[in-house]
Order: sequence, then C-alpha cells, then structure tokens
Amino acid sequence: MELLDKLNWRYAAKAMNGEKVSEDKIERILEAARLAPTSSGLQPFEIIVIKNKDIKEKIREVGWNQSVITDCSHLFIFAAWDTYTKERINYMFDLTNDIRGFKNEGWENYRQQLLNSYPQKDAEENFNHAAKQAYIAFAHAIVAAAYEGVDTTPMEGFDAEAVDQILGLRAKGLRSAVLLPVGYRKEDEDWLVNLEKVRKPMDKLVTVIE
Amino acid sequence: MELLDKLNWRYAAKAMNGEKVSEDKIERILEAARLAPTSSGLQPFEIIVIKNKDIKEKIREVGWNQSVITDCSHLFIFAAWDTYTKERINYMFDLTNDIRGFKNEGWENYRQQLLNSYPQKDAEENFNHAAKQAYIAFAHAIVAAAYEGVDTTPMEGFDAEAVDQILGLRAKGLRSAVLLPVGYRKEDEDWLVNLEKVRKPMDKLVTVIE
Repeated sequence: MELLDKLNWRYAAKAMNGEKVSEDKIERILEAARLAPTSSGLQPFEIIVIKNKDIKEKIREVGWNQSVITDCSHLFIFAAWDTYTKERINYMFDLTNDIRGFKNEGWENYRQQLLNSYPQKDAEENFNHAAKQAYIAFAHAIVAAAYEGVDTTPMEGFDAEAVDQILGLRAKGLRSAVLLPVGYRKEDEDWLVNLEKVRKPMDKLVTVIE
Repeated sequence: MELLDKLNWRYAAKAMNGEKVSEDKIERILEAARLAPTSSGLQPFEIIVIKNKDIKEKIREVGWNQSVITDCSHLFIFAAWDTYTKERINYMFDLTNDIRGFKNEGWENYRQQLLNSYPQKDAEENFNHAAKQAYIAFAHAIVAAAYEGVDTTPMEGFDAEAVDQILGLRAKGLRSAVLLPVGYRKEDEDWLVNLEKVRKPMDKLVTVIE
C-alpha cells in the first residue's frame, strides 16, 4: 500500500532546509485538513499559515528555539475555538442548509440540541473538545503532506499564550492548539532522520475481541 | 491527487451493510494508526478492535443506538491512557533504546524531564493530552480506511464510562476516547450518503500571513 510507504518515510523533521513548498502542494495539504471530519461537522478551528520571516522568528522564540519554525516553508498554526457560541453553531447549520438547498426538521432539532448544550458549558471544556477536532485536521495535514513527499514537524512544545499574543488570536476567539512546520528535511543537520522509527509493536497497541 | 479523491469519497456512514472488511485491509488501517506521530513518541493509547456481535450490541445500547455500531465489520475503540505513569514513560524510552541499539545522553535527559513532569500532573489533564494523541491515530485510521475504499463513522456520541465498564478498560488504566466503526456503507438506508458534503470555504478556514 503506497500510503503506508509514505507514512514510513514520514518522521518529525528536526532540521529543515528553507526550500519552499509549491503552492499547489500546500493547497492540497490544506484541502485534506479542510475535508477532515469533525464533531457535528462544526470544524471548530482555523488554520493560520505563516510565510512571514519576522513572525516565524517571534514564534521560534516562544517555541523552544526549534530551528524548523524558521527553516520551514510554511508554518501552520491550528487554532481552536476558545468556546462554542450560538453564532458559531448557527453559522455551520445555516451553511449546511445553504449548500444542501433545504431545511430538515431532524437537522433543525439537532441544531437546537447543540445550541442548548455547548454554549452553556465551561469554556475550557469546549476548547478542549474543539482542540481535539483540530487534531483530526492536523493529522490529515500530516498524512497529506507525507503523501506529497513534504516533511512536517508535529509540535506541541511552544508557549501557547505567547503564540496567541503574537498572532492576536484571543481577540478572534481562538487559541493555538498545535503547530505544524511544513517544508523539506535537511538531512545532514538532522539527528533524527537516520534513526530507526520507534513504535509499539502491534500486539502492545491492539487488542482484538473475536 | 488521488488522496483528495478518497477524502471526498469519504463521509461518516450512517448505515452499514454488515459486510466483512478483509483482514489485510484492517491490518493496513491499524498500521497507519500505529505509525501516527504522538507527543514525545509515547503512543499513549490502545486500540480495541471488536468483532464480537454481543459486545457490539452492548456498546450500541450506550451509543445512542446507532446502527453502524452493530452493522460495521470491525468496531475500533480508541482508548487513551488514564494518566502518564513512570512505568509507561520508561517503557517507551527503553523500547527506543532497544530498537536503536544505543543510549544517548540527550535522550536520557529528556526521559528524566518527562518523568519529572507528566506523572505529577492531574490525571484528567494527562488523559486529555493522551486523548489528543489518540485522535491523531484515529484520523490516520480514517484516512487509511478511505484510501482502502473502506467506510468509517467517526463517533463521539457514546457513554464513555459505560463503554469503559463493558470492556473493563479502567482496570487496565485506559479510558475510551472515541469510536470508529469500520465497514461498508449501505446506501439505500443511509440518509447522509447522497447529501452534499459541507465544509467551511477555504477563506473562512485559513488565514495566510505573507
């Protein structure tokens, strides 16, 4: 299976060479993220794509000084909704009605069910839930990049509040959840590239109940 | 790009026909999940694969009576670690040393750093973090299944505590995070299959900073 070959080729690049990834590849990687399934179809996140050198440098300062933050081609920031609001829920249900061209009673009842639950919940709980949906899209981007022969570095090691401040995310009702530098590996400076991939053996990961 | 065609073909099946997915396809889908990147490489989750009819029926009862839970071929349960423990962290670091055949000072320092932080944190915070890693693997499984022409139904709508009890997960230090029925769509009984896919337009999802 070709996809598994790509996933075996993939690793978390620890050094990148600054080479630009073509915009058509970037578009396909973002499209894979856009197509990711999310809870109730709400897509409760946005993706900030940073090509700007100065902003990459600022983020590197609050990202454990990891070189891939500046040496990547495009830095993706997956920023989740800080909470679920009535407006945000209604946007997606209205969009659905617009795209499908009809209203449906079951669907409208489901809208009410969400309106009557999510916005009343604790914002932190909602953010955590939204962040998980962002992780689904994040993983889609990682797989799609590997499929395109493009490297990525999945990255949780950064000061999220500082990144939020640099990008003004809180004012937009967003909080950075996870980063994804996208670019090309620099093999001669990457300590990880030639080390064997480590994963739990299948029998430690999976239990089958016949 | 073939992968995007598959992701456009994919949707959350609302009815499945009971047909078995071949074991070689299941193995490749699980292998994609196994290869998913996770924070510090800890893979803080397990996957329970249920083929047993009675157990599927019990889970359906606590899963909003969704028919795909019983009509799928294999029901995947992604169960995250209930917390990070010293034993669990040491297992992955020891496995890494075993596989790579050497010890490295930087890596051992990183082990100590994790041992000095994760196990002391609140279990709920740790579970939430582990669950996010499980979502990365969950998304890998979804994409790999689509690549194989196999349907899935990403599913958060279930009583997690009840599923934990049915499967005895808590005693193993696991908590169910998300479900994934894997099988084949039953088009004539699926209200969703012929409806247009709804996603936010790219300009509502992505902001590029040049």
